[in-house]
Amino acid sequence: MDIKVRKANKSDMSRILDLIKELAIFEKEPHAVAISVSDLERDGFGENPKFQCFVAEFDGHIEGMALVYTRYSTWKGNILHLEDLIVSERMRGKGLGTLLLDEVVRYGQDLGVKRISWEVLDWNEPAIKFYEEKGADVKRDWDVVHLNEKGIKSYLSKI
Amino acid sequence: MDIKVRKANKSDMSRILDLIKELAIFEKEPHAVAISVSDLERDGFGENPKFQCFVAEFDGHIEGMALVYTRYSTWKGNILHLEDLIVSERMRGKGLGTLLLDEVVRYGQDLGVKRISWEVLDWNEPAIKFYEEKGADVKRDWDVVHLNEKGIKSYLSKI
Repeated sequence: MDIKVRKANKSDMSRILDLIKELAIFEKEPHAVAISVSDLERDGFGENPKFQCFVAEFDGHIEGMALVYTRYSTWKGNILHLEDLIVSERMRGKGLGTLLLDEVVRYGQDLGVKRISWEVLDWNEPAIKFYEEKGADVKRDWDVVHLNEKGIKSYLSKI
Repeated sequence: MDIKVRKANKSDMSRILDLIKELAIFEKEPHAVAISVSDLERDGFGENPKFQCFVAEFDGHIEGMALVYTRYSTWKGNILHLEDLIVSERMRGKGLGTLLLDEVVRYGQDLGVKRISWEVLDWNEPAIKFYEEKGADVKRDWDVVHLNEKGIKSYLSKI
């Protein structure tokens, strides 16, 4: 079995979008994906890329990806955020997730960040176990808050 | 009473750091703030600013701030992240938080984002109530995960 992790190319974005959609179904939000292949190509591979993406290939086929970008913490300065770590359902348990996370942590070190952050669903026990085994701190008292597109419009209509 | 919200200047960063430290104490992590005034000045006011900051002045004195930057969602593309919304303890309940959040939502609209995100401690009920009244969705099933500086070093030593 031949697993290889490398930086993503523009031509990988169609397969990347497949993986994003697969994860959205798993996370019970199949209709939440509003992004397109051309959005990902434009945003990740222009003059000022908005993210960096790594892929894991299994026998030459992309079966996993990690997508990261920097954020700014008012406690730690530059940090790295892992937006998505996805392994296709059929290829779980083969070590692809670990190899992708290894690459992300190395990348964080290269950038000199003092923290790598991400988010996890509190019912996704296999993911939480995996992250905790890697030394990450799942902060069960910190919740994510969203004001979505409809919420933004509604908010602005009232002020 | 005279409340004014405006963009922060470089010379405001010393007062901004005071507010950041005040919040860290409230969040029970008084020693977590590793950032300095010169870090904030360099990172927020250089050629490629890493954040945008708004301040709320009460009778000419800064008593609140909101610090934001863009992130990249694989579902929604560009989003705006509200890293901190802080009002000094003595000035709570006077409407400064609302005026700051109004400014953040307007800024998000100007950028054309489809989501504004932030994070909240699940025991901070006054904050949760405030955000929910504004139409935000506090996602109690989404937890924040951190791999801190020590965790990064330990991780890398094992691979």
